[in-house]
Amino acid sequence: LFVALTLAQLAEEIGAEFAGDAQGKTSVGDVRITGAATLEDATACHVSFLFNSRYQKQLKTTRAGAVIVGRDVQCDRLNLLKTGDPKLAFAKAVIALHGYRRHGHAGAHPGAFVDKTATIGEGTILYPGVNVAARTRIGRDCILYPNVVIYEDCVVGDRVIIHAGASIGHDGFGFATSKGIHHKIPQIGNVVLGDDVEVGPNTTIARAALGSTVIGNGTKIDALAAIGHGVNIGPHGLVVSQVGIAGSTTIGHHATFGGQVGVVGHLEIGNHVTVAAQAAIVNDVQDGEILMGSPSMPIAHGRRVHVLFTKLPELLDRIRDLERRLAELTQKR
Amino acid sequence: LFVALTLAQLAEEIGAEFAGDAQGKTSVGDVRITGAATLEDATACHVSFLFNSRYQKQLKTTRAGAVIVGRDVQCDRLNLLKTGDPKLAFAKAVIALHGYRRHGHAGAHPGAFVDKTATIGEGTILYPGVNVAARTRIGRDCILYPNVVIYEDCVVGDRVIIHAGASIGHDGFGFATSKGIHHKIPQIGNVVLGDDVEVGPNTTIARAALGSTVIGNGTKIDALAAIGHGVNIGPHGLVVSQVGIAGSTTIGHHATFGGQVGVVGHLEIGNHVTVAAQAAIVNDVQDGEILMGSPSMPIAHGRRVHVLFTKLPELLDRIRDLERRLAELTQKR
Amino acid sequence: LFVALTLAQLAEEIGAEFAGDAQGKTSVGDVRITGAATLEDATACHVSFLFNSRYQKQLKTTRAGAVIVGRDVQCDRLNLLKTGDPKLAFAKAVIALHGYRRHGHAGAHPGAFVDKTATIGEGTILYPGVNVAARTRIGRDCILYPNVVIYEDCVVGDRVIIHAGASIGHDGFGFATSKGIHHKIPQIGNVVLGDDVEVGPNTTIARAALGSTVIGNGTKIDALAAIGHGVNIGPHGLVVSQVGIAGSTTIGHHATFGGQVGVVGHLEIGNHVTVAAQAAIVNDVQDGEILMGSPSMPIAHGRRVHVLFTKLPELLDRIRDLERRLAELTQKR
Repeated sequence: LFVALTLAQLAEEIGAEFAGDAQGKTSVGDVRITGAATLEDATACHVSFLFNSRYQKQLKTTRAGAVIVGRDVQCDRLNLLKTGDPKLAFAKAVIALHGYRRHGHAGAHPGAFVDKTATIGEGTILYPGVNVAARTRIGRDCILYPNVVIYEDCVVGDRVIIHAGASIGHDGFGFATSKGIHHKIPQIGNVVLGDDVEVGPNTTIARAALGSTVIGNGTKIDALAAIGHGVNIGPHGLVVSQVGIAGSTTIGHHATFGGQVGVVGHLEIGNHVTVAAQAAIVNDVQDGEILMGSPSMPIAHGRRVHVLFTKLPELLDRIRDLERRLAELTQKR
Repeated sequence: LFVALTLAQLAEEIGAEFAGDAQGKTSVGDVRITGAATLEDATACHVSFLFNSRYQKQLKTTRAGAVIVGRDVQCDRLNLLKTGDPKLAFAKAVIALHGYRRHGHAGAHPGAFVDKTATIGEGTILYPGVNVAARTRIGRDCILYPNVVIYEDCVVGDRVIIHAGASIGHDGFGFATSKGIHHKIPQIGNVVLGDDVEVGPNTTIARAALGSTVIGNGTKIDALAAIGHGVNIGPHGLVVSQVGIAGSTTIGHHATFGGQVGVVGHLEIGNHVTVAAQAAIVNDVQDGEILMGSPSMPIAHGRRVHVLFTKLPELLDRIRDLERRLAELTQKR
Repeated sequence: LFVALTLAQLAEEIGAEFAGDAQGKTSVGDVRITGAATLEDATACHVSFLFNSRYQKQLKTTRAGAVIVGRDVQCDRLNLLKTGDPKLAFAKAVIALHGYRRHGHAGAHPGAFVDKTATIGEGTILYPGVNVAARTRIGRDCILYPNVVIYEDCVVGDRVIIHAGASIGHDGFGFATSKGIHHKIPQIGNVVLGDDVEVGPNTTIARAALGSTVIGNGTKIDALAAIGHGVNIGPHGLVVSQVGIAGSTTIGHHATFGGQVGVVGHLEIGNHVTVAAQAAIVNDVQDGEILMGSPSMPIAHGRRVHVLFTKLPELLDRIRDLERRLAELTQKR
């Protein structure tokens, strides 16, 4: 695959407006874009992008053939492709120029282990070392990378991507402790992954003790997350790496959980909830809340708390000063 | 396997007392229980349970054929199975009705790799992709799920369960740094897992630099925990997902560590210690302590600290108010 | 392999000074050292070591045939091997007496999957279940333990060690969200591991969206770390288990990150930076800084903050006391 697009073709492909002939040196027809690159690495044949203001200064130095930007960005020295959603436009550009990974084989690789009672949809690719246990059903056009393990009776939707080493449907951490001995409770539920779910490498999603652990359509989970038994995450969530969600917690749609967030079990968390990295959620959360901190707080309050936390020595000094002045005042009387 | 039990049979099986004929609509002989389900999902053929008061209100609406409860629960509309330990009774019910996972093969699957000097006890099941290295000894009736790796010279007891992708006995993180270069120290110890240990998926337990990393009999470790080299966890502990325990720390029996807890190296931690999720243990811990927070504190104190932490802006307001009033008072004099 | 060294030979091998004939009971020629062990476990044929003062008291009771110590340690009852760098000397002793792991096969095990377009250097060992994808190049004398996965187009240097189940080069967590749907951005970059890198079990290193995720020469990463797409870690770093580093962050050489540290994306972190366990790095960091806490602070300040954090109830009491005394004072007037 080798693709070369003029700026006009690229602009049309990604739904952007070509903002013109930088410094009069180029015309639309002159530039041929053959790849995408960062502002730092790009050369004349690359399209780049700006959607994090942290990198704005690189507009002055980049050698990119074109840059995808928001509508308000100005830069005379560059060919700009302007759009209301530069990140989406950039995604489209990368798809147009590079496409997604191409696989060396179709269907289940001979090095994958698929139980004879499991079913795999058309177009689904299983890499070597994948293990699909009894009665598990996998939909169409999924990709299971090497060494993914799916235990029995699970259900995987269509277009699901599971990265290397993820474990889906192992036993939840369920024990009945009696006289100091932990007795294993059979975990007779399963895991249901909706359509268009992506699961990061070495992430673990436990089967429910009873019923199902559910990941809703379109939810994306990063690497090394631990999803407990009976958790239900609604559609279109983003769960960043190393998040841990304890058993039986229910989360609405469009959740965003930053890295290393911890969530205790048996909570009800609403829709459109956003949680900053490393926070600890220990109570139910209403729709739309934005939280941070351990324990978590609404973000505006949490930011004040974190600033004051780092200023505790100064607070102590002010208390000491008050004590000294009050003692003086009392003595004088 | 299909099991149907009358309430009388089930009550006997789980050691509970049948509290009678709900609303006069059923008699013991009428109800046939064929499965276990949550209060929400249960129908007339299911036994359910209540041992988290959070779900108490569901007693009013559940359609369960019977519910296992503590001795003090009353609910006229339901067939209750009363017991002093409803969680244990529920575990027994699930075992009686559903049993544990049945495996599609016995012994080592041909897709497992077992070194010719390793030994595997009778009744032990190795799934495809399991790798057991030289001289490792595995006891009887163990289950190693797909892609579990056990490095050389380790010892695994009887009835041990290791979930997919766990790594046992890789090199501990041991380096001697000289002139800015990290020189690898051969890790010549091993890992010893006691009887009835369970290890979660993708959990990692490092071999000792010297001697053994030890997990005591009956200790259960959840997913994605990182156990450092030379750690010794006593019997009957519970280590929840994503816990990290650094090298050479010794932990007594009946430890309970919540999710994402971190423990620094070279500590001595007593028996019956409980640590809340996300806490950081940085000092030795006495028997029976219950800790929370980062850094960790006794739980009663830690709860107060966490409340005050979230109220830091209010504390600052009170300090400012004191400063203002004191300034006024001083000025007036 | 069986090695027995006299104390004189061992002293020479590890560059230490033999401090003599403990209690007149032994002479250099009498003692034959055949292995290394902890102070607690060592017997007369073992060399042991002391480089953590926590274990100093064990000098009084150890039965070790010799102990490697710093130059200032005195202990009449023991044969001491004195050196300015006892940890490095001990590493040399373990190498001399035990050596590194010996492997049961050379090259790629038949149970490994190597794409025909991938290249593997001489002396490199691939264990069963390893998967090396298209066009990935692996240098000489590397060891890839069972079930390691390396996606396509990655580059691995010489003498790299990757422990079981690690995933290198999976897709970074890159999505363009539009109208509540997360659209996957093809991740067209790769991962580059320098020479002498070691990667812990089940650690995940994402491929860059564009360009390369880079781990510098000699950097050692422990178990279960999550390295995001486009991260660049300089040479000779130490990244302890469960660290998470978000995308596009650049870290200088000789970084040391303690367990469970979290680092947000798009940061610039200098050289010789040290971060204590569980800290959160949310801003750029200058060369040489030593940080702790969430949010992170310079360590001296952070220690004071953590002490005051645990004393918040006492601070509140002092504020209340001030309020009471000020009210009395105001009333009296």
